[in-house]
Amino acid sequence: MSIRLIVVSMAATATLIAGLAMASPSVEDQIKARQSAYTFMAWNMGLIRAQVIDEDMPFNPDQVRAWANAIAAVANSNMSLMFGPDTVQGTGWKPTRLRPEFFEDMSRTGEIAGNFIRQANALVEAAETGDPAAIAAQVRQTGEACGACHRPFRAPE
Amino acid sequence: MSIRLIVVSMAATATLIAGLAMASPSVEDQIKARQSAYTFMAWNMGLIRAQVIDEDMPFNPDQVRAWANAIAAVANSNMSLMFGPDTVQGTGWKPTRLRPEFFEDMSRTGEIAGNFIRQANALVEAAETGDPAAIAAQVRQTGEACGACHRPFRAPE
Repeated sequence: MSIRLIVVSMAATATLIAGLAMASPSVEDQIKARQSAYTFMAWNMGLIRAQVIDEDMPFNPDQVRAWANAIAAVANSNMSLMFGPDTVQGTGWKPTRLRPEFFEDMSRTGEIAGNFIRQANALVEAAETGDPAAIAAQVRQTGEACGACHRPFRAPE
Repeated sequence: MSIRLIVVSMAATATLIAGLAMASPSVEDQIKARQSAYTFMAWNMGLIRAQVIDEDMPFNPDQVRAWANAIAAVANSNMSLMFGPDTVQGTGWKPTRLRPEFFEDMSRTGEIAGNFIRQANALVEAAETGDPAAIAAQVRQTGEACGACHRPFRAPE
């Protein structure tokens, strides 16, 4: 998905959420969904890291591929639906840490989101090689893409 | 993945978790991961339902495919790693509702889990047809597979 398409998609999503009262998930549900999505992705990243970086679990290429697929499928699930413009404050499982800066320059936000999706997809490609060193390198790249969103848009705990 | 393989995998997982202190996620992390995984799957099921059953969102086959992929990728991520034998009690985002019966007959548990994975994969196949009626029918089948686990193994709220 191109960056332009993501930005358009995010704008269309905001309109969609605003316009469809019945289908519109509550602020709480949106925040809970994204906290769940990131927690689940972090879980899978941790398992992949344990096998190819920390090496405290034996390397199992099939498992790593399944975990990479899980991360990429979340990344490609149109997470912008979890970021309605009224969700800058609110509580899901816990109070959101989203910063208002997320909504200030949506072309920049879309660029960061697009890079994360690309790096998550690249993690699947790396996992498909079955080469632990290649996977480890791409885990680091994908982790960088996570951080590139956390730094500007996520408040400290 | 066959049912037998899932059962073997769950047993192997329990051994793996017990044997690898460093890589072993805490009870809290396992429970939080599964609560996140199920919440994220329910989010995606809700979006698909909104498009093909409730019809309060316009049908978008690409989105439905992405949501079905997300559900199936979670289902195939070896969720047994989130169900260590010491997680029958504990708190993730909230206290777990897992019933001890989950661990009492692992061949039955494996069968229920295996059916859920098959129904989640069938949802991807249905989504790939692009036919809203076929998708709606499979959403109901997949929902049945969710319920088949909730009824015996999840305590009421």
